[in-house]
Amino acid sequence: MDLRERVVVILSGGLDSSTCLGIAAKEGHAVYALSFDYGQRHRHELDAARRLANHYGVLEHRVATLPFLREIGGSALTSDELSVPTDGVIGGEIPVTYVPGRNLIFLSIATAYAEVVGASALYLGVNALDYSGYPDCRPEFIDAFAGAATLATKAGVQGRRLRIETPLLRLTKADIVRLGLALGVPYEWTVSCYQGGDVACGTCDSCRLRRKGFAEAGAVDPIPYQVAF
Amino acid sequence: MDLRERVVVILSGGLDSSTCLGIAAKEGHAVYALSFDYGQRHRHELDAARRLANHYGVLEHRVATLPFLREIGGSALTSDELSVPTDGVIGGEIPVTYVPGRNLIFLSIATAYAEVVGASALYLGVNALDYSGYPDCRPEFIDAFAGAATLATKAGVQGRRLRIETPLLRLTKADIVRLGLALGVPYEWTVSCYQGGDVACGTCDSCRLRRKGFAEAGAVDPIPYQVAF
Repeated sequence: MDLRERVVVILSGGLDSSTCLGIAAKEGHAVYALSFDYGQRHRHELDAARRLANHYGVLEHRVATLPFLREIGGSALTSDELSVPTDGVIGGEIPVTYVPGRNLIFLSIATAYAEVVGASALYLGVNALDYSGYPDCRPEFIDAFAGAATLATKAGVQGRRLRIETPLLRLTKADIVRLGLALGVPYEWTVSCYQGGDVACGTCDSCRLRRKGFAEAGAVDPIPYQVAF
Repeated sequence: MDLRERVVVILSGGLDSSTCLGIAAKEGHAVYALSFDYGQRHRHELDAARRLANHYGVLEHRVATLPFLREIGGSALTSDELSVPTDGVIGGEIPVTYVPGRNLIFLSIATAYAEVVGASALYLGVNALDYSGYPDCRPEFIDAFAGAATLATKAGVQGRRLRIETPLLRLTKADIVRLGLALGVPYEWTVSCYQGGDVACGTCDSCRLRRKGFAEAGAVDPIPYQVAF
């Protein structure tokens, strides 16, 4: 009988969620990995997610299909009519790459999954320091969600609180890179670029944050870019 | 220019959500209706939802597809391995027809939709009196969710709170029926039965609660049943 704590790791296939998976595996949990196919421009991050899930020997890796986010649009990541900015302006206004309700929906579906497999915690790779300014990455949202999700489920009725683990929340991107490298996370497989091309553009917000993280950590990013740093 | 307040009505095609739609229409809102195809046994409730949305002249009716809930199972409504109870035992334990995370997921997706169309409220036909004992129908969950959803979205960052309207929360099923009949809601089109047959079974929890509501309201339920009351 498997006595390890069961946890659900939300795994996009990017740098942060892959580090989260590395942490959950290191902590010795029985991991259920959950990815989302929501019509994102950078859909090939799902191939990275599959490879990482396999590498870490998760108990199960599921990809939930959510065509609705592309149907309603409203984000440069899910609409062909809006383009991904590459001007390097990070911070200030909520950017056009913000996907309305994304983390809310991901966490809700992960809550349902956790309930069915008997997991007591969700791991989410949000980060409130080196991030793009999305409202659903803020710690106050995560706390509020944990309370709502607990009330929504059987676990809550039985007096158990659903935990949401966000081990990267207060780390800089450089800290995350250092931690992931120490854990041996195979960053060469991860996909961060929002543009969805075969080779990362190097100039969208996500590429810029990633490159800055590796640079500040004094490490070499193992993936190629279209544009030199 | 349409100056009406925009609202999203979560519309299953059942008695409660149809009454909610009737209320939102009566209140003079610009309605966006949202239904979910989550592999439910009683999928033909979606035909009822389409007919109702059309009847009320909503601005848009969307059906979000969520195959994941059937993929993970865990409920008699989404799994062919569990059957829908017809013994009439209502209350006590959380029943097998409870779908893990359902209202949490529905509200999350509705929040995203509201954000994209600029709606300031969600209408949800939950009821905490004559209901099946699902945790995600409790008022404390609805309140907690409204807080979390507000924090997750652009509206929250800009100081606007997402309202969740639950006009049926404190009504008995008889009160709901009386209200809906007074509003002229076409109950003859609505689908409540969990079994998913062409004719309502009359014996599942949902049929029983509905029939009790009509009986106590002294009204005739316009839909046929397989089994006499």
